[in-house]
Amino acid sequence: MTDHAVGVDVGGTKVAAVLMTREGEIVAKSRRPTPHAVTDPAGAATADVILDAVTDLVGDRTDVPVGIGLPGMMTRAGVLAYAPNLPSANGGDFTTLLTTRRPGLRVACANDADCAALAEHRFGAARGNDHFVMVTLGTGIGGGLVLDGKLVRGANGFAGEIGHMVLDPRGPKCPCGSRGCWERFASGAGIGRLAREAAAAGRLPQLVEQCGDADAVRGEDVTAAAAKGSTEALAVIDEVAWWLAQGVANLTAILDVSLVVLGGGLGSAADLLLPPTRQHLVGMIEGGDVRPVVRLERSVFAEQAGAIGAAQLAFDAES
Amino acid sequence: MTDHAVGVDVGGTKVAAVLMTREGEIVAKSRRPTPHAVTDPAGAATADVILDAVTDLVGDRTDVPVGIGLPGMMTRAGVLAYAPNLPSANGGDFTTLLTTRRPGLRVACANDADCAALAEHRFGAARGNDHFVMVTLGTGIGGGLVLDGKLVRGANGFAGEIGHMVLDPRGPKCPCGSRGCWERFASGAGIGRLAREAAAAGRLPQLVEQCGDADAVRGEDVTAAAAKGSTEALAVIDEVAWWLAQGVANLTAILDVSLVVLGGGLGSAADLLLPPTRQHLVGMIEGGDVRPVVRLERSVFAEQAGAIGAAQLAFDAES
Repeated sequence: MTDHAVGVDVGGTKVAAVLMTREGEIVAKSRRPTPHAVTDPAGAATADVILDAVTDLVGDRTDVPVGIGLPGMMTRAGVLAYAPNLPSANGGDFTTLLTTRRPGLRVACANDADCAALAEHRFGAARGNDHFVMVTLGTGIGGGLVLDGKLVRGANGFAGEIGHMVLDPRGPKCPCGSRGCWERFASGAGIGRLAREAAAAGRLPQLVEQCGDADAVRGEDVTAAAAKGSTEALAVIDEVAWWLAQGVANLTAILDVSLVVLGGGLGSAADLLLPPTRQHLVGMIEGGDVRPVVRLERSVFAEQAGAIGAAQLAFDAES
Repeated sequence: MTDHAVGVDVGGTKVAAVLMTREGEIVAKSRRPTPHAVTDPAGAATADVILDAVTDLVGDRTDVPVGIGLPGMMTRAGVLAYAPNLPSANGGDFTTLLTTRRPGLRVACANDADCAALAEHRFGAARGNDHFVMVTLGTGIGGGLVLDGKLVRGANGFAGEIGHMVLDPRGPKCPCGSRGCWERFASGAGIGRLAREAAAAGRLPQLVEQCGDADAVRGEDVTAAAAKGSTEALAVIDEVAWWLAQGVANLTAILDVSLVVLGGGLGSAADLLLPPTRQHLVGMIEGGDVRPVVRLERSVFAEQAGAIGAAQLAFDAES
């Protein structure tokens, strides 16, 4: 039954699974809450829920391959080596955890943004484009690279950790240990930080009045106000867009991609960011006179991209 | 005679050519000065000298394929779209220039650092390594990416412009139009700039005394003094190494390479930079606890890498 595959996307709050055909049709879906209990071995509870979701879709059969996207640095062998946003699964050997529980099951694991890149490449915003970067904006920034038509996984499986590209070595501290990582500026966390800075500097007077005090202003407040046309909130969005463009410009200089797809869970904030980011990009890239400006597009599948791409990963592993 | 190929490396001062076997043996060499006359069409004088060098090695035969590395942004079709360091050839359509002059000649063109990467991959410091970045340190910084064993050329042919990755958006102006590009800090120009800053700030008292005044201190003076063990000069080298490490850390986060090869014309400065750069790298990369530290090695072929790699490019185009 390898004309079908299951794709599972493990996020911070939910485990989303789809049963798909090779042609991209979604036959069935399942959704369960992500467990956060710390287990021994690490990730055991996560593996149980992954298999529950698989069972929801295909019962206990093992002839349907399963692809899984997990949030963090996945080795090529299927170990979640570093998962700051899913501590309970940190270090989990998912290939072993899953095949021990269900012998004979064929599993393929990758980083969730890598899976999203596969989904957009096959069926979404990057269909027909063989040189693109998937940028997933959430609390942080994840990434997947498709170069010459192939997903780049790197020496260890960790390629695409673009959110930890340093853009300002004197910038704010990042939990990863560095300073001024891209995701400190151009992500959900980045909007929040730049919003608090703007509020403290007196650049968000209306929003501060509305929220009570400067410390109470959150990224969501800025996004909501900007969506309603607030000039002061749009100025913060523009600042975030400038940083987003700077990272995209760096990726373009390094990789010469022709397309960047914006996905992830940032929703309406991403829609607000797109136009000013496109404006900032013009003129930011070396040799801009002799090359087409890199295109910036929204993800077609948004939050479903991870599960859809995970199924593609499973198909790829079969061939 | 495609068991042989000619490789030509066009630099700012010389055109270096080699006749090579597939196995990597250099059979003959030629070297001519780079012309700088502005011609119509652009690059005509350069094309003439390239063909003179080819003639030096194989006469006027056209059954030996020729690969050419040029300094700048080369399109996949062989147009030198942007060459700030070789203005006379800027915009030259080298495929047409060469095949018009010598009909039947099979030519393949690429960026010079891309060629250097091919040389190191096949026969040099990256032999057996399929995930590495070639970093050529000269006046600026060039780059070539080998991922999953293949040279990455990008959508237009411009991949590897790593010297224009912005590391400090408030940093010094770059001729490319941006601020704080990597090559403003960690290149020949970068050593010179950081040396002048250090001299002006009183951090190079001995060297300033030796050179006459602070404005007279050049990068070469710092490199020479550091090579002799001068503590104040080594502090500047350490600063350059810190920036070099920061760029390597970014490339590692994005690409998950396991090796970075340092080449280019920086000579002894590169030897001085290697140990402190390795030290700074430890701890700079996300998830450092769970991944091997990226290795940093010197180029085996140094300034010959471009011509050797250009010959490989020609072989690759044949197969």
